[in-house]
Amino acid sequence: MSWKTKSSIAEKRKAVLESLEKFGSSLYEQMARGVFPSIEMPSRSIDNIYYHPELRQYVLGEKRVRRTARNIRHIRPFTQLVWAAFFSHELTSQRKTSTLRDVYYSAQAYEMSFKDQQESNAIITDLETVLGWSREDFNIFPEERSAIFGDLTIEYTVPGYEGRTLNLTSHPDGVMIGPALTSAEFVKTSADKVIAIEKGGLFTRFIEERVHERFNALLVLTAGQAPRATRHFIHRLNKELGLPVYIFTDGDPWGMHIAMVIISGSANAAHVRELTTPDAKWSGVWATDIVKYKLPTDPLSDIDFKRLRELQRDPRYKDELWQREIKTFMKIGRKAEQEAFSRYGLTFIVDEYLPAKLEEA
Amino acid sequence: MSWKTKSSIAEKRKAVLESLEKFGSSLYEQMARGVFPSIEMPSRSIDNIYYHPELRQYVLGEKRVRRTARNIRHIRPFTQLVWAAFFSHELTSQRKTSTLRDVYYSAQAYEMSFKDQQESNAIITDLETVLGWSREDFNIFPEERSAIFGDLTIEYTVPGYEGRTLNLTSHPDGVMIGPALTSAEFVKTSADKVIAIEKGGLFTRFIEERVHERFNALLVLTAGQAPRATRHFIHRLNKELGLPVYIFTDGDPWGMHIAMVIISGSANAAHVRELTTPDAKWSGVWATDIVKYKLPTDPLSDIDFKRLRELQRDPRYKDELWQREIKTFMKIGRKAEQEAFSRYGLTFIVDEYLPAKLEEA
Repeated sequence: MSWKTKSSIAEKRKAVLESLEKFGSSLYEQMARGVFPSIEMPSRSIDNIYYHPELRQYVLGEKRVRRTARNIRHIRPFTQLVWAAFFSHELTSQRKTSTLRDVYYSAQAYEMSFKDQQESNAIITDLETVLGWSREDFNIFPEERSAIFGDLTIEYTVPGYEGRTLNLTSHPDGVMIGPALTSAEFVKTSADKVIAIEKGGLFTRFIEERVHERFNALLVLTAGQAPRATRHFIHRLNKELGLPVYIFTDGDPWGMHIAMVIISGSANAAHVRELTTPDAKWSGVWATDIVKYKLPTDPLSDIDFKRLRELQRDPRYKDELWQREIKTFMKIGRKAEQEAFSRYGLTFIVDEYLPAKLEEA
Repeated sequence: MSWKTKSSIAEKRKAVLESLEKFGSSLYEQMARGVFPSIEMPSRSIDNIYYHPELRQYVLGEKRVRRTARNIRHIRPFTQLVWAAFFSHELTSQRKTSTLRDVYYSAQAYEMSFKDQQESNAIITDLETVLGWSREDFNIFPEERSAIFGDLTIEYTVPGYEGRTLNLTSHPDGVMIGPALTSAEFVKTSADKVIAIEKGGLFTRFIEERVHERFNALLVLTAGQAPRATRHFIHRLNKELGLPVYIFTDGDPWGMHIAMVIISGSANAAHVRELTTPDAKWSGVWATDIVKYKLPTDPLSDIDFKRLRELQRDPRYKDELWQREIKTFMKIGRKAEQEAFSRYGLTFIVDEYLPAKLEEA
């Protein structure tokens, strides 16, 4: 398959800059009209966060909050938000990337005071809510990096690399998913699916066993809980390239939730889209796989049980498969890691388990 | 600078296989002579671990332990060790990589019993001690991945990529340091130094600000405590290419120790070489930098103070610079992160701080 979506990233960047500028103009306009400037946005308080069954993610309800320079208690967060918009505009227009922590310290260069990083993080989330863009769209990236490997050719849009292409099989340890890859255009792929894997060792095993060729797959390493940039990248692979996504994690409540956050996101990100892949499938290790494959296990701890009971009540977990697996975990009282398949030899997971699970899905 | 060290990796692999085979032969020979086979190795008990001031790392002393199949209490660890050697030989000769966790589960495929992963980890460490090679040399790699970026051309030796080269500027998010990169040959570089950086956000900043070009440097992301494979890779850059190494971490006892483990290794690895880079320099963030640059700080916690007192007594920290910085930390009672320089603008760290520190060193 070959195509060009060339303009999408450039257009998005333009749209982000425009929405930042529009935000600034609206403040100027209000002042020109002689009124105290104010900002309105959806409320992110818990009573305004709902699970949306069709979107299959959390969303914000109708409640809105208003920050106005007229109210003395609002002046501080109001000013911080305006600064955050200014700084994000600087980053985006100058094509520099940053992190949440960096934003906190950068504020001091402008004598903008945040009492701690929590406060500056919350303001960045406000800005996401006001604009409807993710912070990665205005070049604020997570520290963590994960990786991808497989036959996908991308074209960079970052300064110094514009127009250069890279095929993601070029480095057999995997290609890091950072700001440059996240903002790359997709050029060409022969893959017909995405397989996301929790653990680094297994990711390497999959590459060594040529899973990308044998199963026509792009392999994504989530490295535990997938960083936001990686979740966004998986979303793009699914939406832009139409590739189905299969997620393999450890067989325990924490592994389930790594998959779920890729699929349906978190309540914290109810104000943004594009971080979820609702059609992605959690393909294992299921509790029922533990039984079926007689895997070596460890007992579930009290914390594991507590977590399972939480997930049982979580609206994202209401589907039959999830409920069945949660119940099975509780019944067997055991958990298993992905590597447990090595009890049948190093390549069993690739030769037997993976094809069986892909067929099942 | 251009050269070929082509044979080094292939020769090492051969030497590793030979030493595994020699180990196996010695057991057979003993049995052929009609004696119970036994294995001797340096003791790794605490009373046999010494700091070696010239090597500037921990080493094992003269005490040796002997495991013999004659002693019923030895039979279990003896058998486990023989299996570990067999399995390592399988991995190395078949060119498959693995992880410590995978080894634990793989044992079950051979009905070799380990009561938990701790036990199998200890046996792998025994094998390192017996052979004098690191587990990475027999293809057992850490889960964690870090990254490198800069003008270094490498040539792969892993199956499917033999002879293919990659320039490490090819992906502007950085090139992952995994088994394939670790086992690659060095072909060519224009760099005259290595700069190792603790944090992902700053690593990206350095790439964006073209530190690799402006300072002729290879940039290494340690991503917190550097994984063993990364420490070994830094060692190779220093030994094989003769490049000096400068390490930049957060300004706190934990950052200091990230640098120290790259420089002098850990007591746990007293039985192996090639994981240390004794001539590498910790270039910052020093406690004295915090004062000099008036950085935004946080107070040291009780745990930070406790850690500083431990480091003060640690033989690796006996040099004047380390002692001075430990004292200064205690005196000011504050710590600062690398990102704190952003208070002077995003590029201050690259434009002002970095050149000043490189000149100083």
